[in-house]
Amino acid sequence: MTSDTTVTACLLLIGNEILSGRTKDANLSWLAEALGAAGIRLREARVIPDDPEEIVAAVNHCRARYDHVFTTGGIGPTHDDITAGCIARAFGVPLERNADAIGRLERHYNDPSKLNEARLKMAEIPVGASLIDNPVSAAPGFTLENVHVLPGVPKIMQAMAEGLIKTLKGGRVMLSRTLVCRIMEGTVAETLGRVQAAHPDVEIGSYPYMSPNNAGVSLVFRCDDAAKLELAVAAMEGELKALDTEYRVE
Amino acid sequence: MTSDTTVTACLLLIGNEILSGRTKDANLSWLAEALGAAGIRLREARVIPDDPEEIVAAVNHCRARYDHVFTTGGIGPTHDDITAGCIARAFGVPLERNADAIGRLERHYNDPSKLNEARLKMAEIPVGASLIDNPVSAAPGFTLENVHVLPGVPKIMQAMAEGLIKTLKGGRVMLSRTLVCRIMEGTVAETLGRVQAAHPDVEIGSYPYMSPNNAGVSLVFRCDDAAKLELAVAAMEGELKALDTEYRVE
Repeated sequence: MTSDTTVTACLLLIGNEILSGRTKDANLSWLAEALGAAGIRLREARVIPDDPEEIVAAVNHCRARYDHVFTTGGIGPTHDDITAGCIARAFGVPLERNADAIGRLERHYNDPSKLNEARLKMAEIPVGASLIDNPVSAAPGFTLENVHVLPGVPKIMQAMAEGLIKTLKGGRVMLSRTLVCRIMEGTVAETLGRVQAAHPDVEIGSYPYMSPNNAGVSLVFRCDDAAKLELAVAAMEGELKALDTEYRVE
Repeated sequence: MTSDTTVTACLLLIGNEILSGRTKDANLSWLAEALGAAGIRLREARVIPDDPEEIVAAVNHCRARYDHVFTTGGIGPTHDDITAGCIARAFGVPLERNADAIGRLERHYNDPSKLNEARLKMAEIPVGASLIDNPVSAAPGFTLENVHVLPGVPKIMQAMAEGLIKTLKGGRVMLSRTLVCRIMEGTVAETLGRVQAAHPDVEIGSYPYMSPNNAGVSLVFRCDDAAKLELAVAAMEGELKALDTEYRVE
């Protein structure tokens, strides 16, 4: 589903392991692309520690500011998995052992002795939330109003987010074109600035690249209106030809 | 230099290209590790768009909250490089063409015709800031009070940050030990929770891993006191042996 409005999102990556540098986050770029393709624009991402005060404050700040907030991390069975409790606190609702969630875990673990107290913690969901299916390892995420709670393990997060995002109403999809140019950024900067000024509805980004035998700049044009996007790209292609610059369109 | 205090930092990754998913950030984990080794703890990271209001607000919020703020991105020669101006606005000081910065660019570009107006923009520095050396491409970063402004290109950022971090006074370094265990997280969760409760000064994180023919959990113990760290790790090793669990220490 798409509409004509802009739909915004913020991502909260919860986890000390990312802030220590031990774990390289793999969820931001994946979610940014998946949301973008669904017409939901990621406007901010924060990496925050496993600290209840920090999590509650960030959730409450961001859910008031953005159409959607996605969290990753902290919904497993161990003592450091505190996200569900923090979301409940942020909304001022209690946590409960959710009967549907318990049923999913019971079917997954089969042997009742494996469904110990720690694993049952994964069925503790804020009152009023709806569950997000987990096709990999059963333990569900949940949505409470505009806050969507996902796990941190990328493979499981992706499987759950794919299902979730299909249910969300997106806005206009941002379209993108890239001109990869064999020219130094500083040489083309003034020209690019003129093109940007003449096409204010198109967001133009300039990203230099370097490799041992190659250097140049990628000019990325983004707009949710295809005609405006093409006009800006064509204007820049004209300038690059006038400068006799090699480039390719991606 | 180290002291007995905790020194905190926040990282602001500035750039639409990260929020669109086009560019995978490579700076967060590198800076987290480099700062950690210098006794500076990364407590938060934010990815924010190339939007002056957002940048100014984030800089002012974070510089009041953390001992250091590091920014990456937005200090090149193009129209979308707006970080220096935003930092000046955040501090309420003007931008100026910095004579020292101009000199560095002049020596780097050699041919005066290459040092055009766009490249001279890279010498615009907030009044009162000190320059951060750029051993790769000359254009400097800068430090204004506790805010350190670095570029987004990882190779250049790393070369500049290495020099910068040596000049900063760190606190106690967080020490870390990891037990990589062949046991499911949910099976060991209750035991781990008891060890955490008995060693409240040690931060224990639990991170499941999965590969096609291998699954288990990495238990990460972190503390700035070596003796406390060893006690907590030894307690957990005792528990793992009692459970007859295979593990290795990293």
